[in-house]
Amino acid sequence: MLTDIERHALRRAVEIAADDGVPLGPNPRVGCVLLSPGGDVLAEGHHRGAGTAHAEADALARATASLTGATAVVTLEPCTHHGRTGPCADALLDAGISRAVIARRDPNPVAAGGIDRLRRAGIDVELDVPEELAAAAAHLNRGWEHGVRHQRPLVTAKLALTLDGRAAAADGTSRWITGEAARAEVHELRATCDVVLVGAGTARADHPTLTARPEDGARVPRQPLRAVMGTGQFPALPTPEGAGEAITLATHDPSAALADLFARGRRHVLLEGGPTLAAAFLRAGCVDELIVHLAPTLLGTGPPGLGDLGITTIADRLDLDLVEVTPLPPDLRLTLRPRAA
Amino acid sequence: MLTDIERHALRRAVEIAADDGVPLGPNPRVGCVLLSPGGDVLAEGHHRGAGTAHAEADALARATASLTGATAVVTLEPCTHHGRTGPCADALLDAGISRAVIARRDPNPVAAGGIDRLRRAGIDVELDVPEELAAAAAHLNRGWEHGVRHQRPLVTAKLALTLDGRAAAADGTSRWITGEAARAEVHELRATCDVVLVGAGTARADHPTLTARPEDGARVPRQPLRAVMGTGQFPALPTPEGAGEAITLATHDPSAALADLFARGRRHVLLEGGPTLAAAFLRAGCVDELIVHLAPTLLGTGPPGLGDLGITTIADRLDLDLVEVTPLPPDLRLTLRPRAA
Ligand SMILES: NC(=O)c1ccc[n+]([C@@H]2O[C@H](COP(=O)([O-])OP(=O)(O)OC[C@H]3O[C@@H](n4cnc5c(N)ncnc54)[C@H](OP(=O)(O)O)[C@@H]3O)[C@@H](O)[C@H]2O)c1
Ligand SMILES: NC(=O)c1ccc[n+]([C@@H]2O[C@H](COP(=O)([O-])OP(=O)(O)OC[C@H]3O[C@@H](n4cnc5c(N)ncnc54)[C@H](OP(=O)(O)O)[C@@H]3O)[C@@H](O)[C@H]2O)c1
Repeated sequence: MLTDIERHALRRAVEIAADDGVPLGPNPRVGCVLLSPGGDVLAEGHHRGAGTAHAEADALARATASLTGATAVVTLEPCTHHGRTGPCADALLDAGISRAVIARRDPNPVAAGGIDRLRRAGIDVELDVPEELAAAAAHLNRGWEHGVRHQRPLVTAKLALTLDGRAAAADGTSRWITGEAARAEVHELRATCDVVLVGAGTARADHPTLTARPEDGARVPRQPLRAVMGTGQFPALPTPEGAGEAITLATHDPSAALADLFARGRRHVLLEGGPTLAAAFLRAGCVDELIVHLAPTLLGTGPPGLGDLGITTIADRLDLDLVEVTPLPPDLRLTLRPRAA
Repeated sequence: MLTDIERHALRRAVEIAADDGVPLGPNPRVGCVLLSPGGDVLAEGHHRGAGTAHAEADALARATASLTGATAVVTLEPCTHHGRTGPCADALLDAGISRAVIARRDPNPVAAGGIDRLRRAGIDVELDVPEELAAAAAHLNRGWEHGVRHQRPLVTAKLALTLDGRAAAADGTSRWITGEAARAEVHELRATCDVVLVGAGTARADHPTLTARPEDGARVPRQPLRAVMGTGQFPALPTPEGAGEAITLATHDPSAALADLFARGRRHVLLEGGPTLAAAFLRAGCVDELIVHLAPTLLGTGPPGLGDLGITTIADRLDLDLVEVTPLPPDLRLTLRPRAA
């Protein structure tokens, strides 16, 4: 059980870990708050991406008072490995802490072991944190954890569909099938991913910028990498000031494309279509999460929102679990996960 | 404001009006409870369809004690017209009631006026009933009210669709796209409508029985009329014992088909497809309510769930209002209304 002060400190640790100045990518986002035995905040720290101090080291470096008997509140299990910095579990022990509150175990077998090390040294380690905070700490590093487990980025595919499954009308017009709220959410999604990926067909048809541009004009400090997948010609993406780097993935193989993005340190891909590429990823089992923006509108005819999945008979259909249904008036957001994933 | 006893009596009046032995069709379903000045139930009555006593007359005939100073609790405004029976408003006045609680005004200009007549005779008429009971009283006669206002039956269209808008796989197989809960609901829907309508294509492909068969094997006293619409050949519908009458509507014109059904005394059509007929009704503006059973499954290819609407460009899309979203695990039920309707 956490004290109220510890709960508050953990909420703060999640908050600073999520600092949007911190890059997404191959390192986890982690926050740390050091509390005195009396419950005062002695220091805060967070990890700022590859090559920078871990959150615990950052906080320890900022602390000016004695840490004897202090409590370390961290969003992720302290590491035990010698990387660019020494093991954080040891650093906390050396500083003299007597209690640690840890929101999430490290899924990385190389880094894990911090909890054991602390416990063996007699530290009181508390893992029973409020579910909401545990979920928030896990959510921060969804892409990173997926990478640790599967050696490829997490893939969120997004489709905008009419109720009858169309992506556009018969003459190809499609602006706008979905309403403002859904379109604004696409920009939010882009800002939480480190790659936005489309097929060459979309690049040829739409000349999309693929940047994250919030409605309120707020600056988005982290623009996603913009990737176009295909082997044919397509015009370069328009590149407004501040847009993320644009690359071409000259392949038709989803796994190869994801391996390339993983090697570039990317951990969460927003697959924005079109229908052909979305179908290729679904067929290859490379979609982890599907977000459908469903518009309450009918077209009857027009290009289907999803390409051929190679399914010919009903028994082979691709079933998904419906995880969440959220109104995005006038549209509906459906969040789904393929059964196999 | 209603007393607790009156509220209870109105709930009971709705309940007896909804008696499933009463046919749907051209007469409204109405219930009446007569309360003594002390709040005792003196009699209950309900209308049992064309040619039978109105609810008020039924209740009055059953009362044995004096009705002087009684309260009449009715689900629908008492009539003032001389039909097969005399005006109910007059009958209540003659009986000596002093108060009336009325859940719903009569939309029928020929029958309305009962409230005025009662008030002019000095009766205390209460129309301010709890919203839930007013809604229940209105819902009972949805089809009937629609008929009074528009001179055609109410049309509820139902489509079963995959997330990508398919009605079947490429080889035509479609059993079962939706799960048990959605399929069970179709039988419930059939039991609340007085016509089930399909196109000749569905009759040719599926040989459907179109009966209401609840999961629990319960008897459904009112089986809907079974109508197939089309001008070509199709096999007769299989007719299990107890099934409703089967008819052919030899036309391609939705308005003509609805006029025929209206003339037969039908007031609520469940349009069960297929894609061609659903599209024809939508194009003709003849769908009042659309129920989509959306299955969280993908097919990629296969016959679309909805036929051609004659829409070629996005600006002409058929927008609907999403009225309700209800889980029918694993599926989702969406209830929508065309904007124009
Ligand atoms: N409603 C929505 O959510 C949405 C989203 C995005 C786009 N769209 C619409 O979709 C339309 C474009 O459709 P589309 O299907 O052509 O777009 P697409 O899926 O973006 O692009 C298809 C192209 O991607 C390349 N490609 C990469 N990997 C492939 C693979 N595994 N298999 C096949 N091709 C692969 C091929 O180009 P190469 O021949 O060059 O290799 C192919 O022609 C546009 O009108 C756009 O507006 C709709
Ligand atoms: N997923 C679902 O919710 C659902 C529901 C029902 C059926 N289905 C499937 O739908 C498939 C049949 O599709 P379908 O489109 O052929 O079925 P349909 O819509 O039931 O029937 C089409 C036929 O209806 C007649 N028709 C009546 N009015 C018409 C009009 N205004 N315009 C055009 N035709 C009219 C025509 O037959 P005539 O030439 O004889 O006049 C036409 O060929 C079956 O495989 C069935 O399983 C799916």
